[in-house]
Amino acid sequence: MELALLYSGGKDSSLAALTLDRFYDVTLVTAHFGVTEEFENARSAADALGFPFDTVELDREVAEEAVDRMLEDGYPRNGIQRVHEHALEVVAERDVVAVADGTRRDDRVPTVSRATAQSLEDRHGIDYLSPLAGFGRGAVDRLVERELDVETGPSEEIARADYEGELRELIRERGGEEAVATVFPEHDQTIVRGLA
Amino acid sequence: MELALLYSGGKDSSLAALTLDRFYDVTLVTAHFGVTEEFENARSAADALGFPFDTVELDREVAEEAVDRMLEDGYPRNGIQRVHEHALEVVAERDVVAVADGTRRDDRVPTVSRATAQSLEDRHGIDYLSPLAGFGRGAVDRLVERELDVETGPSEEIARADYEGELRELIRERGGEEAVATVFPEHDQTIVRGLA
Repeated sequence: MELALLYSGGKDSSLAALTLDRFYDVTLVTAHFGVTEEFENARSAADALGFPFDTVELDREVAEEAVDRMLEDGYPRNGIQRVHEHALEVVAERDVVAVADGTRRDDRVPTVSRATAQSLEDRHGIDYLSPLAGFGRGAVDRLVERELDVETGPSEEIARADYEGELRELIRERGGEEAVATVFPEHDQTIVRGLA
Repeated sequence: MELALLYSGGKDSSLAALTLDRFYDVTLVTAHFGVTEEFENARSAADALGFPFDTVELDREVAEEAVDRMLEDGYPRNGIQRVHEHALEVVAERDVVAVADGTRRDDRVPTVSRATAQSLEDRHGIDYLSPLAGFGRGAVDRLVERELDVETGPSEEIARADYEGELRELIRERGGEEAVATVFPEHDQTIVRGLA
């Protein structure tokens, strides 16, 4: 059974892939807007984990709307949520039995409500899976430590492929580094280098 | 890493076991009140799947409270929820890194909220996992079809070990078959016979 997993190259979506590997033919799919080449980092992570990899291009208009929203809000939550929902819609168009992502129990964003999940399933005739929805932060950290080789650093240095890099770039074009720093507070990100 | 999974011998908790098997040393644990011997059916299912099996005895007072509540309500939901939360508390006392159950995204009962999960984790120093929390009914059905050999039938004939049989027995002692039929509408259950 073919499954497409929205993939950033980070620890959550990588762990989600390992969880589903027993049941599905998993392809890791990175969604991007054609703004940066950061999806190549996700490809490297997928290769290192031994999963097939593909990309899908998202609607640039959605990125612009998300940037408008983030600049207005002064924080990224609603913009990221909008982009994630759009990415799920696009990946659900693939010829697969199921789509999945790496959202966790304790994530604040993106989140996919039960109603959103069921709507996606009904409209596209696929199953939507969030295999880490029942895993808390502690469990994810412990499993990542055992299962994955990860590199952690500030988000401006670690080039993951989870929309954030591209959205930062679009915000930079509009308002420079200052706007980026306002919307995205400094935080660490991880990229997966391979299995532990 | 040792993990104790609350186990009924049914399809959901069996599928949960397969999901976690890659990451943990899973023991299937059936919680019971010492009312019936239905836990032996869960032991047979665990043996057929090749997992270690154990039982824990729950507080009989909780069963009586649950029965009071179910008779008062005329439906089982709140009573089952009370028993499930108690069972999680008891199994979390074991010498394990994590406890888990088979609750699914689309279950109405039992449910374990994020707050309840975090409280359980903090008080017992364990991780709580619900590996099917991100799986809808359709995905579970498709995976069960491929992975498990199951037998389905009316709940009075299929002797699973998910508290329901014992609670039915306690209700029968108080109000006879009529009371059982009032609280538990007829529905099908499944018990797992082995891997597909």
